[in-house]
Amino acid sequence: MTSGSDPNRPAIEGGPVVILVEPQIGENIGAVARAMLNCGLTELRLVRPREGWPNPRAVATAAGADRVLDAARLYPSVDYAVADLQRVYATTARNRGMTQHILTPRAAASEMRGHWQAGLSLGLLFGPERTGLINDQLPLADALISIPLNPQFASLNLAQAVLLVAYEWFQTWPELPPDRVLHTGQSAPATKAALVNLFEHLEQELDACRFFSTPDKRPSMVRNIRNAFERMTMTEQEVRTFHGIVAGLTGRRKGDP
Amino acid sequence: MTSGSDPNRPAIEGGPVVILVEPQIGENIGAVARAMLNCGLTELRLVRPREGWPNPRAVATAAGADRVLDAARLYPSVDYAVADLQRVYATTARNRGMTQHILTPRAAASEMRGHWQAGLSLGLLFGPERTGLINDQLPLADALISIPLNPQFASLNLAQAVLLVAYEWFQTWPELPPDRVLHTGQSAPATKAALVNLFEHLEQELDACRFFSTPDKRPSMVRNIRNAFERMTMTEQEVRTFHGIVAGLTGRRKGDP
Repeated sequence: MTSGSDPNRPAIEGGPVVILVEPQIGENIGAVARAMLNCGLTELRLVRPREGWPNPRAVATAAGADRVLDAARLYPSVDYAVADLQRVYATTARNRGMTQHILTPRAAASEMRGHWQAGLSLGLLFGPERTGLINDQLPLADALISIPLNPQFASLNLAQAVLLVAYEWFQTWPELPPDRVLHTGQSAPATKAALVNLFEHLEQELDACRFFSTPDKRPSMVRNIRNAFERMTMTEQEVRTFHGIVAGLTGRRKGDP
Repeated sequence: MTSGSDPNRPAIEGGPVVILVEPQIGENIGAVARAMLNCGLTELRLVRPREGWPNPRAVATAAGADRVLDAARLYPSVDYAVADLQRVYATTARNRGMTQHILTPRAAASEMRGHWQAGLSLGLLFGPERTGLINDQLPLADALISIPLNPQFASLNLAQAVLLVAYEWFQTWPELPPDRVLHTGQSAPATKAALVNLFEHLEQELDACRFFSTPDKRPSMVRNIRNAFERMTMTEQEVRTFHGIVAGLTGRRKGDP
C-alpha cells in the first residue's frame, strides 16, 4: 500500500540467499517471498518444508512475488542448503547458551554489504515458526542476528522477521535516494531574492495598515515574521500565491499596482 | 518466532500514536497492533474502520497484543484523530504532486526521537490498504515517510508498513543493547596469557612431530596458525578443550604430563 512500485525505475536486486528451515505453513513461505522481493532478494531455499513443495497456499500470499517461489530450491538439511555459501547469518533469539557473535540486523547488514562487495556468497538462515533454529543447526552460522524489539512482546511471525532483516540489507545499497528530500512538484524552490521581494511586499502593507504598534518593535517583529516564512521553504509558485494573498487581503486584485 | 520475549527484562514502550485511516480489513488492524507492540507502541487510533469496531477478526491476528486493540479509539476524520498532536508523519508513496518533505523511516525516527525528548506529542498516519492516503488527508502532516524498497516490487501490506516505521522508531531508544556482542555463555573470554599457553603447547607438539618442514619457515607458519586461532576469540573453556584436543591427537590422555 504505502510505498508504490514505479515501473520506470530499475529494480534493485541481489544479496543474500534466504534459507527457511522446516517452515511449517505455506502461507508464511509466500509472505516471506513477498518480503524478500520487496527488499530485492530473489533466491529462496527451503529445508524440508512441512507441507511439501510446491505449495499453492504459498502463491496466495506471495502477492505477485511468484518468481521467487518458482525459483525456490529444496534441500534435505541445513548443511546442504548452506554448502556453497561463504558467510551465513542465523536469525534467532538471544542466549542460546553458545559462544557466538550476536548482531543486530543493522550491524549484520553492514557486515554483509562488505562481504558482498568482496564477492562472497551470503546466506540468511531462519528457523521454523514455532521453535526457531535449534543449536545443532547453528554451528555453520558465522554470527547470529537478534532483532531488537520490546522485550515484553518480541515474538514476530516468520515473514516479519525476514522483512526486517532484508529491509536492513536493502538500506545498505549505495544507489538509494537520500534520507530526506523536499519534493517540490512542478515548481522550483524559491530564490532568496524572491523571498525578500515577498517580505518587502508584506511589510510595506503592514506599515500601511499600522500593524507595527511602535517603531522600536518593528525590527524584531519583522525578523520573526520573516523567520516563520523562511521555515516554509517555499517554491516559486508559493511565493506568487502569497503575493496574491497579501494583495487580496489589502483589497487589491492580483495584477493591480 | 525469531526474537524471544524475556519476562525478566523491562518493557520498552512509548512513542508516536499510530493512526489508521479507513482500514478495510479487520485482520490487518490486529496485525498492526502486534507490530506496534513489538516495537513498544501502544496507542492506536482508527478513523472510520470499514468493518466497524470492535472487530473480533482483529483480535485473531493480534497474537496477544489485545491491550493495544482494547485501548484503540475511534475518530470520525483525520483532523479529529490528529487534533491533540504536535508533529504528524504520514506514510505514503512518493510523488503526490505536493510540496512536502519526504523522509525515510530512519530519518523520520531520528527526527521523532528529538521531538519526543522535547516532550512533543507525535503521530504516524497510515492510509487505507488499497489506496493509501489521499492528498486531502496530508496537509496536517509535517512530513511524509517513504520506505526505500525495490522500485519494481514496493507494495507492502499495512502491518508490514507499520512494522518497518515502528521498528525504526524502536531502534532509536538509547537503552538498547549494543549492535554487536560476543555472547560467551557461562565461560569468560580467554586471557591472552591463556592463549599463548595454548599456542606454546601446540607448537611444542608440532615441533615434536616435525610438522615444520624447514626451520626458516617456522616463524611465519607459527604466526599464521596463531592468527587463525586468535580469530576464534576463544573462551577459557574452549582453551581447555583445545589443550585436550592437542593432547588427545598426540596420544596422551587429558591430565598426563
